Amino acid sequence: MVSSVVVIAGVGNGSGTGAAAARLFAKEGYTVALISRGAEALNALASSINSSGGKADSFPVAAYGPDEVTAAFAAVEARFPSPEYAITAAIFNAGHGVWKPFLQVTPEDVREVSKVNIEASFAFSRAAILAFQKNEPSPATGAKGTLVFTGATASLRGNVVTSAFAAGKFAVRALSQSLAKEFGKENIHVAHAIIDGGIATNNERGNRNSPPSGPVENTTPNSKLSPESIAASYLYLVNQDQSSWTWELDLRPAHEKW
Amino acid sequence: MVSSVVVIAGVGNGSGTGAAAARLFAKEGYTVALISRGAEALNALASSINSSGGKADSFPVAAYGPDEVTAAFAAVEARFPSPEYAITAAIFNAGHGVWKPFLQVTPEDVREVSKVNIEASFAFSRAAILAFQKNEPSPATGAKGTLVFTGATASLRGNVVTSAFAAGKFAVRALSQSLAKEFGKENIHVAHAIIDGGIATNNERGNRNSPPSGPVENTTPNSKLSPESIAASYLYLVNQDQSSWTWELDLRPAHEKW
Amino acid sequence: MVSSVVVIAGVGNGSGTGAAAARLFAKEGYTVALISRGAEALNALASSINSSGGKADSFPVAAYGPDEVTAAFAAVEARFPSPEYAITAAIFNAGHGVWKPFLQVTPEDVREVSKVNIEASFAFSRAAILAFQKNEPSPATGAKGTLVFTGATASLRGNVVTSAFAAGKFAVRALSQSLAKEFGKENIHVAHAIIDGGIATNNERGNRNSPPSGPVENTTPNSKLSPESIAASYLYLVNQDQSSWTWELDLRPAHEKW
Amino acid sequence: MVSSVVVIAGVGNGSGTGAAAARLFAKEGYTVALISRGAEALNALASSINSSGGKADSFPVAAYGPDEVTAAFAAVEARFPSPEYAITAAIFNAGHGVWKPFLQVTPEDVREVSKVNIEASFAFSRAAILAFQKNEPSPATGAKGTLVFTGATASLRGNVVTSAFAAGKFAVRALSQSLAKEFGKENIHVAHAIIDGGIATNNERGNRNSPPSGPVENTTPNSKLSPESIAASYLYLVNQDQSSWTWELDLRPAHEKW
Repeated sequence: MVSSVVVIAGVGNGSGTGAAAARLFAKEGYTVALISRGAEALNALASSINSSGGKADSFPVAAYGPDEVTAAFAAVEARFPSPEYAITAAIFNAGHGVWKPFLQVTPEDVREVSKVNIEASFAFSRAAILAFQKNEPSPATGAKGTLVFTGATASLRGNVVTSAFAAGKFAVRALSQSLAKEFGKENIHVAHAIIDGGIATNNERGNRNSPPSGPVENTTPNSKLSPESIAASYLYLVNQDQSSWTWELDLRPAHEKW
Repeated sequence: MVSSVVVIAGVGNGSGTGAAAARLFAKEGYTVALISRGAEALNALASSINSSGGKADSFPVAAYGPDEVTAAFAAVEARFPSPEYAITAAIFNAGHGVWKPFLQVTPEDVREVSKVNIEASFAFSRAAILAFQKNEPSPATGAKGTLVFTGATASLRGNVVTSAFAAGKFAVRALSQSLAKEFGKENIHVAHAIIDGGIATNNERGNRNSPPSGPVENTTPNSKLSPESIAASYLYLVNQDQSSWTWELDLRPAHEKW
Repeated sequence: MVSSVVVIAGVGNGSGTGAAAARLFAKEGYTVALISRGAEALNALASSINSSGGKADSFPVAAYGPDEVTAAFAAVEARFPSPEYAITAAIFNAGHGVWKPFLQVTPEDVREVSKVNIEASFAFSRAAILAFQKNEPSPATGAKGTLVFTGATASLRGNVVTSAFAAGKFAVRALSQSLAKEFGKENIHVAHAIIDGGIATNNERGNRNSPPSGPVENTTPNSKLSPESIAASYLYLVNQDQSSWTWELDLRPAHEKW
Repeated sequence: MVSSVVVIAGVGNGSGTGAAAARLFAKEGYTVALISRGAEALNALASSINSSGGKADSFPVAAYGPDEVTAAFAAVEARFPSPEYAITAAIFNAGHGVWKPFLQVTPEDVREVSKVNIEASFAFSRAAILAFQKNEPSPATGAKGTLVFTGATASLRGNVVTSAFAAGKFAVRALSQSLAKEFGKENIHVAHAIIDGGIATNNERGNRNSPPSGPVENTTPNSKLSPESIAASYLYLVNQDQSSWTWELDLRPAHEKW
């Protein structure tokens, strides 16, 4: 039997959305391929999944540049070759977060946003689409594969300290919509989740999709997004059948002011 | 043990979204209260659910006016009283569909759109919110109740034959967003699903959220929305936990051009 | 020579957007037909325009119902008949403003929103479009006529006290977009202006497009919208040539937080 | 008396939006500083303005990279120094247009979109904002300066051949909205014009904001946008007073299907 592989880019320190998705998809029987910076956290996450009965491997990158992401995706395909494996899901959860007044945004900040949010997201999408095109449609969902992007409040609105971050997030949203329209007819599902609130992570640096916020201990289930709940929504998107695919949904805590 | 009740307004001829939601929620253990015009189809649906081991009752209305909807909701509460029952979900699936060039739209068309899409949706929402406020938050989701509205392509864009329909659908979307913002902090979840495509129903007149389209036999799973898949998304929304609530998602067939 | 007529619905107490538009269009040579409640303020505005060398007449209505608006528009056409006159611009500035927590919104509030924002706006639009269709395209702009709607922040976002107001404003926006798409090809221009801030009027009750705010004396030119500046934007829209028509623009004070 | 300077980036072959804006602003008394590739067309445009009684100078760049744009803007400031001159308007009309199925989009295409639409637009904005901050508010408009961005249909929607183009255009829109919100309170006006249709240029390659379309001879005033009309809208934006500033407007031909 063919084993389904999910490729996840961006797992931070192992306590956020990407890591929660990795654990959930592993539990659902997916082989998990993890592309991320920070080899230590990455390897710890893979080990933890493997020791819990799942199957994961890590593909560290020095940076989220387009070349690095393309190379890492190729390594995933080499490590999990057909016909034993088929890449059927991919999650782009990387992103460069900059929250600064505009005049403090440096050319390097903008360059990094361009590299991670645009160039790397295009490279990741290209590799995912090409991999999906090799698959037969799933009997359950009709999909050859599902590509999910992590968005943020800044995907919909620019604001006073988000000029650079919003530029990157708007660009990812545009990409995801274009791909959803272009590849739906090839039975490839592309979705975009707008995370509209702070995420409860161990370490605020682990979460590049929302601005730094207070420590997680102070949060309640209705004031911060749980990474596990976000991951559950990604699984829901992947499991939608072809008659009713979602391109975009928003997610926020019950008590969020928006 | 308290039995959860879902109140559904708008089940058409029993082959569309409202009816599929009724069947699915019944299967999940909900007691189903059906508010709709067309007592015959309504009773047939209730009977079919009851004979399949579910529990449903019908509350026919002569029209989707605000008074009729308010009275029907009161009858639901009288029929399924606390503490045996608690209304924890409500789905507003009614709507008046008009697809005509603007100059053919009559004052009666506009009046009907006002009555069904605005006045009745406000009346239904009021009854649902008041019912939810009596509940304790669900241990599983943190919600006192979830209110789901059925939207359409015309919720997002006016077009050449949708002046009246879009006016009604935009208004419902505004209502749903206002309620989501106002009542999230009271642990009441309000969501809006944009059905962006034709729905596969037995009878095109049964579907007031998309324009008349060809017979269902000609459809494929990726060219028309399955009512069952839409219903599954409503159940997903109802089951989201309070850390990650969706206000809006879109749903369309894989091969839809959009 | 044919005299151009602008029909304006909604002039409040004579100190807001509708009145400023009346004065500006009169100065530009338009004959001004004013449809509004409050005969006293209406007549005072018409007199003031007439005594300043302009030409205006008032068409009071008891309420902004669809029948009243249709009758008033017919009276305008009878008073300013072709071929001496041609109705080439129409501004729908009426609206029912409700800012209340949802559970305080009464069925009467919702009914009034339906009547004014939806039924009356459809009636006004119908009369305007039919009048425009009788015209030749303007040599200067290519337009047979221009219809402008006054929108608000609540045209784009529902919020905690705007369930009813936003429902009405969303509906008007849908109507305006549908009409712009349907009648552009007939050389009829339809536009929608989003007034995203408080308007500096003499009397806050004169402004039904923004919530009650402090007295105008406390305002500065960059904290409140000047009705004259809004009117200038309406004139700009009317004067756009057919190669570059705007459907929607937003307007807000420089210092507005948004 | 201080001479107002407008800085325009992106004038293509001299027949499109940037060039029309240059001619119009020159006629209105502005000194025009032109930043663009293609020194020949650039110099021809400057000469033509100068020989028509206007005042223009050209600042050619080898590419629209951030460094080039920053250097060119510095050259503009050196050539038109205070107190004789004040930069009060800036128009970012550059952009890299890519219309290709996604799998044909190369890493170089994406890199170029990043460089022109994001990195260069940030660099241009930074220079413009810093220049504006040195000014006193205009007595007429209250603005220290106005920055206008040229958007496109792809600023609002990704589509099947616009993954790269839309990514760039969405990013510019995000930037413009962030800047409008951040700098409005400093009396700096930032606006975004969505050009939703083909532009009538001499040469389709001269227009990087809309896809290649048929020759201009076949167009009528209501089927293509006139660059002069677009330019008129930019002048309108620059002349808005501080009580009513527009962030975004759309522009399309009367007969455009949208």
